[in-house]
Amino acid sequence: MDTHPHPLSALSLDETNQARDVVRSLHNGCVLDFRQIFLLEPPKSEVVDFLELEHAGKVTSSTPWPARMAHVRYDVLEPGKAPAYHESDIDLRTSKRIKHEIVATKHQPGLTIFEFEKLVQAVNKSPLFQEKMKKIKLPEGFELVVEPWPYGGPDDADGHTRLFQGLCFGRDKRSGNADSNFYPYPIPLIPIMDARTGEIIRVDEPATGGVNDPYTSQGTAEQPIDHCLPGEYVPELLANGLRKDLKPLEVHQPEGASFTISQGNVVEWQKWRMRLTFNPREGAVLHDIRYDGRSVCYRLSMSEMTVPYADPRYPFQRKQAFDFGDGSLGNTVNNLELGCDCLGVIKYFDGVLTDADGSAVVTKNVICLHEQDNGINWKHTNWRTNRAVVARRRELVFQFIITLANYEYIFAFKFDQAAGITMEARATGIVSVVNIDAGKKVPWGTIVSPGALAQNHQHIFCLRIDPAVDGHKNTLVQEESLPLRRDKDTNPYGNAYEVRKTIISTSTGLDLNPFTNRVFKVQNHSKRNPISGNYIGYKVVTPATQMLLADEHSIQYNRARFAKHGLWVTKHKDDEHYAAGRYTFQSRHEVGGLFDAAARKDNTKDEDIVLWSVFGLTHNPRVEDWPVMPVEMMSVHMIPQDFFTENPSIDVPSKKDNASRYESDCCKQQEILRGVESMGVK
Amino acid sequence: MDTHPHPLSALSLDETNQARDVVRSLHNGCVLDFRQIFLLEPPKSEVVDFLELEHAGKVTSSTPWPARMAHVRYDVLEPGKAPAYHESDIDLRTSKRIKHEIVATKHQPGLTIFEFEKLVQAVNKSPLFQEKMKKIKLPEGFELVVEPWPYGGPDDADGHTRLFQGLCFGRDKRSGNADSNFYPYPIPLIPIMDARTGEIIRVDEPATGGVNDPYTSQGTAEQPIDHCLPGEYVPELLANGLRKDLKPLEVHQPEGASFTISQGNVVEWQKWRMRLTFNPREGAVLHDIRYDGRSVCYRLSMSEMTVPYADPRYPFQRKQAFDFGDGSLGNTVNNLELGCDCLGVIKYFDGVLTDADGSAVVTKNVICLHEQDNGINWKHTNWRTNRAVVARRRELVFQFIITLANYEYIFAFKFDQAAGITMEARATGIVSVVNIDAGKKVPWGTIVSPGALAQNHQHIFCLRIDPAVDGHKNTLVQEESLPLRRDKDTNPYGNAYEVRKTIISTSTGLDLNPFTNRVFKVQNHSKRNPISGNYIGYKVVTPATQMLLADEHSIQYNRARFAKHGLWVTKHKDDEHYAAGRYTFQSRHEVGGLFDAAARKDNTKDEDIVLWSVFGLTHNPRVEDWPVMPVEMMSVHMIPQDFFTENPSIDVPSKKDNASRYESDCCKQQEILRGVESMGVK
Repeated sequence: MDTHPHPLSALSLDETNQARDVVRSLHNGCVLDFRQIFLLEPPKSEVVDFLELEHAGKVTSSTPWPARMAHVRYDVLEPGKAPAYHESDIDLRTSKRIKHEIVATKHQPGLTIFEFEKLVQAVNKSPLFQEKMKKIKLPEGFELVVEPWPYGGPDDADGHTRLFQGLCFGRDKRSGNADSNFYPYPIPLIPIMDARTGEIIRVDEPATGGVNDPYTSQGTAEQPIDHCLPGEYVPELLANGLRKDLKPLEVHQPEGASFTISQGNVVEWQKWRMRLTFNPREGAVLHDIRYDGRSVCYRLSMSEMTVPYADPRYPFQRKQAFDFGDGSLGNTVNNLELGCDCLGVIKYFDGVLTDADGSAVVTKNVICLHEQDNGINWKHTNWRTNRAVVARRRELVFQFIITLANYEYIFAFKFDQAAGITMEARATGIVSVVNIDAGKKVPWGTIVSPGALAQNHQHIFCLRIDPAVDGHKNTLVQEESLPLRRDKDTNPYGNAYEVRKTIISTSTGLDLNPFTNRVFKVQNHSKRNPISGNYIGYKVVTPATQMLLADEHSIQYNRARFAKHGLWVTKHKDDEHYAAGRYTFQSRHEVGGLFDAAARKDNTKDEDIVLWSVFGLTHNPRVEDWPVMPVEMMSVHMIPQDFFTENPSIDVPSKKDNASRYESDCCKQQEILRGVESMGVK
Repeated sequence: MDTHPHPLSALSLDETNQARDVVRSLHNGCVLDFRQIFLLEPPKSEVVDFLELEHAGKVTSSTPWPARMAHVRYDVLEPGKAPAYHESDIDLRTSKRIKHEIVATKHQPGLTIFEFEKLVQAVNKSPLFQEKMKKIKLPEGFELVVEPWPYGGPDDADGHTRLFQGLCFGRDKRSGNADSNFYPYPIPLIPIMDARTGEIIRVDEPATGGVNDPYTSQGTAEQPIDHCLPGEYVPELLANGLRKDLKPLEVHQPEGASFTISQGNVVEWQKWRMRLTFNPREGAVLHDIRYDGRSVCYRLSMSEMTVPYADPRYPFQRKQAFDFGDGSLGNTVNNLELGCDCLGVIKYFDGVLTDADGSAVVTKNVICLHEQDNGINWKHTNWRTNRAVVARRRELVFQFIITLANYEYIFAFKFDQAAGITMEARATGIVSVVNIDAGKKVPWGTIVSPGALAQNHQHIFCLRIDPAVDGHKNTLVQEESLPLRRDKDTNPYGNAYEVRKTIISTSTGLDLNPFTNRVFKVQNHSKRNPISGNYIGYKVVTPATQMLLADEHSIQYNRARFAKHGLWVTKHKDDEHYAAGRYTFQSRHEVGGLFDAAARKDNTKDEDIVLWSVFGLTHNPRVEDWPVMPVEMMSVHMIPQDFFTENPSIDVPSKKDNASRYESDCCKQQEILRGVESMGVK
């Protein structure tokens, strides 16, 4: 029996190492620093043909199997030369390279943890930095902490040098607890490293004054963090301890989970079926999503996000993270822990990452999968008979979490029983702060702790949806509900409104409008719903939020042009997955992102289209965001719209949960909301 | 020891009956039909003084106790006269009437179940209706079902007559199941009852044609429901049975609930404390909401909702429900059932309603209270130490559900550990359908089942928020984040944006704008946050949705002028609780609603202000909404904004849940997302 990996499965450890070996053999005599090795998905046309056979049960040994390829990102270090960034695509069946690009300094690859470590070392040994630090008196018992950050959008003078910046903080060592929070003590020095040489080439000194002070530093204060105060979050360091009145709430699934896993990455849950992969750029990716055997999506993934900061003072204009493109998510993904990150019966998936020497390593528990209850899904009471039928809403949740230095994002793909899909993003973690002098205020942020200014910023996410609504030829239709004038013939009472449909026939960026109830539907125009006569489709409900605020002549804007429209539609192109382009690290322009994709002006009517939902959060911080912020949540929904012939969850049992209990500890009987248990009065 | 009911507690059975007796004695010799008896809350000024003493622990027997009053709504039936609608306010300490109004036909009171029953009887004995029905041939085994509805916005010709309409359906009796769904079989006859006489005065015959057919009926078809098909939802009638692959998910709280109840209606949960009442107009009402002893809200309640339909054909322009004002929620509230409407350890509260003869009756389980887990509330991983601290988000949920004929709404007030409050509305139930001829289509709705047209409509809700942010003198501030031009002095890199604050100093209706990140904050301008220096406050985050679409010259618009703005601010006035005014049933204009309240142009700066959040759903139905629709959810949030000096949930234990389990039934070990478990191929 011959076996192949499924075309939509991530690379195994062996495949990853095989790709490394091929690349090594092609660069004989050079030292290679590997950045990432992951599956280069086969051309969609090949996969689509394959899936058709697979779902028809017709895959045989003579079935043409799509290409199996690895995408390898690495630096080539040649003696006497600057490290050069390369990308190679390796055919794993033939062990041949099928594509090779010396990206060099045209673009910058995403960061690796190794570069972060290099920055910390560079700062420690930099005479330039040490001299600056000498002028600063940290409080007794404090040490310096350097927090590596991507450099952001470069200045003209920076040329094509690969740079990193370090944000500096003081850490109070006196507790002896390595997790004592250092963020409350921002030191206004920002060392800049040339990544080629590993040298600190400059130390920026940002201004720490108020709104009426100059935008540039007037000389770093000698005791810049003496007015700062602690902001602990680890329980053992909390000054007032933990609250004690929260009783346990446990999720029990005595018969186990309702989902099953097969072939390593096929998840089946009631009528849903999909494949899951993990890669170090996008995290969890879902493929070939079907409900009751009918195709809904070909691929669903987080594409990108950008976090621009709005403090106008140099060098804060460079604070702009691309947390997928810059951060190389594989470096930042959390290893999830049982009973903390989700409740109930949980399935964890590991991922394959790449070490600096190219070795494949397993990173544990990068995705968790579980079920949750989300209240009532549908209910009706017949008031004549008083018979109530109520079905609860069970959801299947794929979750992954990333930590980017101070900040975390929690991403979840949720599937519900009514054939809906939700992508949820939660923002939490520690807001980025910079030093501010005592007694000063600025309009560009909030003082969340004495001496710590949390600057205003935005988080703008992009979710990539490659729909396949009963097939791959789909059309995006915009629908609006618009007022109609009262008219004696057509609208005699003034109560009617118009539902206006517009076919989006060319790739473009679109704006949302909740006030016209603008909704977008992906439809298959070759099929009509037998009941309504409408085209079958799925509605894409994306939150109407503020887009990128940066001026159109700013680098922030130019790097993230995708962040100017709430929904983009493009024609599918293999390997076009990233809203801000493949290279965001230290970029000056978005290249190969949504702006360029839309500019092709491809036909998108009855085509293989891709949707990109852009949504965000303008985050002007509040004191309550400190020291770790409570989640802000946002969701995108996909909901069937005339895809089925009835509520697809009508067959969900409305069984009573026998584990539920009356609360009877404090009151012996049911209470009427009345005054009879009156207040006792002296 | 002297005892009084707390001023913020609902009327007891005895108090309700006492009020009835006083009213009876004042109308000697008349027959009275009681509609509603409920607490008339004492003047706010008296309650505020009282609460101050209460929270200081200074209530004594000499404390002036606020008035205890009952509001009584009833019809007076005098021989030979039309029934006249009266309202009386009764002082329960003196058993004296302190206010009496003969509303008569100036306005109409909300409906009662007794009027619904009267309509069904009226139809059955109406020769006019029987004659119409004679022309119609129902399929064999079918019977007529009459569904009473409020009449809606009347025609000029209707004068001040109190009217009801009946929507007619056929019910297939052959299953012998009383819950066989009749809604799929709409019969195009609408009998109209004069409520004074109990006579059917007219039978409307709506058009059943397509878009190009006349707006008026061309004669009711002889066999109008022969092309209709079943749409069952009770499990025993489902043609394909229930799905069988959903395993139980149970919420266990082995140590019981974390909340406590005292004095009959005080709920305490961790740092939250509030009082709960129930009344037949608003449902669950929360009072005197405090966090850690600090006041946040004086009162929180659902104020109103309107559901206008958009089919232009007579008499569908009259389809416009006010589900609180018309429906008299007490008639429609669900008796909740353990293990169906919520999970875990649940506390149920009963309510006191009023029978037609004025007797107080207890209705069971009208509100449920429970805790739920809502994922992660905050998390941070120190990437240096790999120490993760993660706190989950526990919520306290007050839930009540109403059924309005075909449709249901699920309302929940949720409190979280980060001092946030969420009001959630879920829409479910059976969409309202009318008859449509076979082969026809109209642009004003969707055919959800053969012969059944679900007309386009809106649901527009209004949540009333009476804030008390550390006291009663509050100010509403609108804040927007606006782009700033790049400017060499103030914004040299173009990354800065302006946060513009506008004080709303006069009562008014405001519009939302997500694209400028327009947020509204209720602030107390006498207190500043010691860390940030900003005014303490709460942010009100309300969903930006489409407002009322009806033409401004329509009755639909005039009845619901509140539904034109997303947020209103008014100065508090005792007993001003209802967005569309006290009388919505058969209204032609909104009287005493938000439009009038705002028009007073009261000062709202440093005042006792009230906020009214208006949000909605433009519901152009889909086939998947049939036969019972999956919930559509909407939420309003109140989030502290510089109210506290840190994340108020930082002290929530990040304890691991020991009940969580690895999913290990189907796979013996942790899976890597890889191709090694390859597809077997024949």
